[in-house]
Amino acid sequence: MTDFSFTLLATDGMARRGRIDTSRGDIRTPAFMPVGTAGTVKAMYPEQVRATGADIVLGNTYHLMLRPGAERVAALGGLHRFMDWERPILTDSGGFQVMSLAKLRKLTEKGVTFRSHIDGSAHELTPERSIEIQTLLDSDIVMQLDECIALPAGRAEMERAMELSLRWGERSRAAFGRRPHRALFGIVQGGDDAGLRARSAAGLISIGFDGYAVGGLAVGEPQETMFRVLDEVTPELPAERPRYLMGVGKPDDILGAIARGIDMFDCVHPTRAGRHGHVYSRFGVINLKNARHRDDPRPIDEQSPNENCRRFSRAYLHHLVRSEEILGAMILSQINLAYYQELVAGARDAIAAGTFTDFAAETRAGWARGDLPTL
Amino acid sequence: MTDFSFTLLATDGMARRGRIDTSRGDIRTPAFMPVGTAGTVKAMYPEQVRATGADIVLGNTYHLMLRPGAERVAALGGLHRFMDWERPILTDSGGFQVMSLAKLRKLTEKGVTFRSHIDGSAHELTPERSIEIQTLLDSDIVMQLDECIALPAGRAEMERAMELSLRWGERSRAAFGRRPHRALFGIVQGGDDAGLRARSAAGLISIGFDGYAVGGLAVGEPQETMFRVLDEVTPELPAERPRYLMGVGKPDDILGAIARGIDMFDCVHPTRAGRHGHVYSRFGVINLKNARHRDDPRPIDEQSPNENCRRFSRAYLHHLVRSEEILGAMILSQINLAYYQELVAGARDAIAAGTFTDFAAETRAGWARGDLPTL
Repeated sequence: MTDFSFTLLATDGMARRGRIDTSRGDIRTPAFMPVGTAGTVKAMYPEQVRATGADIVLGNTYHLMLRPGAERVAALGGLHRFMDWERPILTDSGGFQVMSLAKLRKLTEKGVTFRSHIDGSAHELTPERSIEIQTLLDSDIVMQLDECIALPAGRAEMERAMELSLRWGERSRAAFGRRPHRALFGIVQGGDDAGLRARSAAGLISIGFDGYAVGGLAVGEPQETMFRVLDEVTPELPAERPRYLMGVGKPDDILGAIARGIDMFDCVHPTRAGRHGHVYSRFGVINLKNARHRDDPRPIDEQSPNENCRRFSRAYLHHLVRSEEILGAMILSQINLAYYQELVAGARDAIAAGTFTDFAAETRAGWARGDLPTL
Repeated sequence: MTDFSFTLLATDGMARRGRIDTSRGDIRTPAFMPVGTAGTVKAMYPEQVRATGADIVLGNTYHLMLRPGAERVAALGGLHRFMDWERPILTDSGGFQVMSLAKLRKLTEKGVTFRSHIDGSAHELTPERSIEIQTLLDSDIVMQLDECIALPAGRAEMERAMELSLRWGERSRAAFGRRPHRALFGIVQGGDDAGLRARSAAGLISIGFDGYAVGGLAVGEPQETMFRVLDEVTPELPAERPRYLMGVGKPDDILGAIARGIDMFDCVHPTRAGRHGHVYSRFGVINLKNARHRDDPRPIDEQSPNENCRRFSRAYLHHLVRSEEILGAMILSQINLAYYQELVAGARDAIAAGTFTDFAAETRAGWARGDLPTL
């Protein structure tokens, strides 16, 4: 069985091209991980997710622990078997969604107690229990439990949450132990404060993780703040470990974060936007609900490598979205996930060729030119 | 271009095996036509519909005339191009759904006026306008406008609606004209009265249609009434034309109607039931919402030719249904449509082999044995 490892293949400025090897296949970085919230990337068959170019998907510990339950998934052979996805899975720790979705949350040094948003049942999540759940799910990349706070926040609050996350990181590391075929990632916290971020990174590195995530971004702050924090944080992280920016983002965020040395991304945005009639393309965002598409026989993008962008007219997609047809959610989720994969694949090629800056500028210029002129 | 024609290939009792040739491909009968209500068989890509074995799909004139509009579909190249389904399409007349869905309906000799259930806009549907709409959609098999009443109903009411439907059949025939590559079907009405049904059939035959539908069934009456009416009606219909039982039905209805000489079926039931967590299988109906499936690692049917019946556990499908995940609707719609196609394919083979009675009995015995024992 292949051990977990990261190989840095090329750099271009701060941007990195790499490969993560795992026992369930390799992950080309920069990588975008589609989010399979509750054991399914919404509105997509697993083979369709793979066909877009995804090497890995993300599973949400919070959702899966509540329904169907981690012990149940384990008894059924693990999350890969459960959802019929045989390639790598990264699971989050559950902490972020406890904070955003659960009810009656109570945070202590030990962990967090809360009630399920589904049925009100009481649950506890500690660093040790989060590792246990992710192990039951048979996750390939396990995340430490952390406390993620919204921005803006005061320095004292950011420091408290960062220090707690560090202590939880240490407990997570102890609970995880040593497993060569699986990886545990630590999470840098510290809000928008460079000093706190540096202390967080140093603390995590001294504990020692298989990869380092940057958490606590894309939580309400402007993009320039996120980029500034990345400028400050990524130089603090070891070059020989993968770096994961959690919960990010829109295509422009991803380009900017790749330029700042990030290797991995996840976000619900492409599938959620698809379910709401928004399409990502080399023309930027297209809102298919808009009446301008109602009579438009043109496809989304006749030069796209993605068949769904060529075969259906905008008028048809407009109709499906307006009629709230499931097929609309299916097609637009696929188109968005494929575009995200096209974006990171383009970035990988450009980094290998030493042309990432040009690639990013050309891609952004395409978005700025906007959609096809109205017929 | 191939003219529309029907070839009777074999009979077995009253059951018939045949082939309808059209300019867009042939239709093996007995045929089940998935319903593509608003330009999509719900939760299915067109190639997935085809892969289940469907030779033809149905489009709903009522839905399509309201949204996106027949003239718009025509300007976009017709319904086949619109939904990317290149094989034959049958469109209904719109009459049935005006009666079941529209608001402020007013029926006259001329036709029916109503308001859209979507936006309240005013519309009129006459026999001539229905033909015009179906022609704009570029339907391969066009249905006459008729008046379909619920059962039970009084004889006078059944007679009035049957006579009106006959006069509308004559106007539909005149409006349609002669088009060798397209077909117009008449619709036998007359409720549950054998005499009225016979008069309706004779009247339609004297007008002359390319096929004959039996309408006004599966509208609230018991199955035995439906079968009795079919016993009375099908012998009145010409052997050399296809016979279509509209809006039917569940698998057992389909077996019974095939035994009585019906060649074509359509029903929303398999896709709608799938969206509600019900699966049709050789074990009968399986309600995946039921807690008995929660921990069941077994697939729906490991001997099924359909991969979706073998690859996902019942526990996973239960989870998707309980979580109201779109993938659940996608998988279960596919499983049900595939089972319906398996059923009519089995019927076709059995009729050709002269073993339809045995096939129907064995199939029903499988349903009666029920689902796998609980683990």
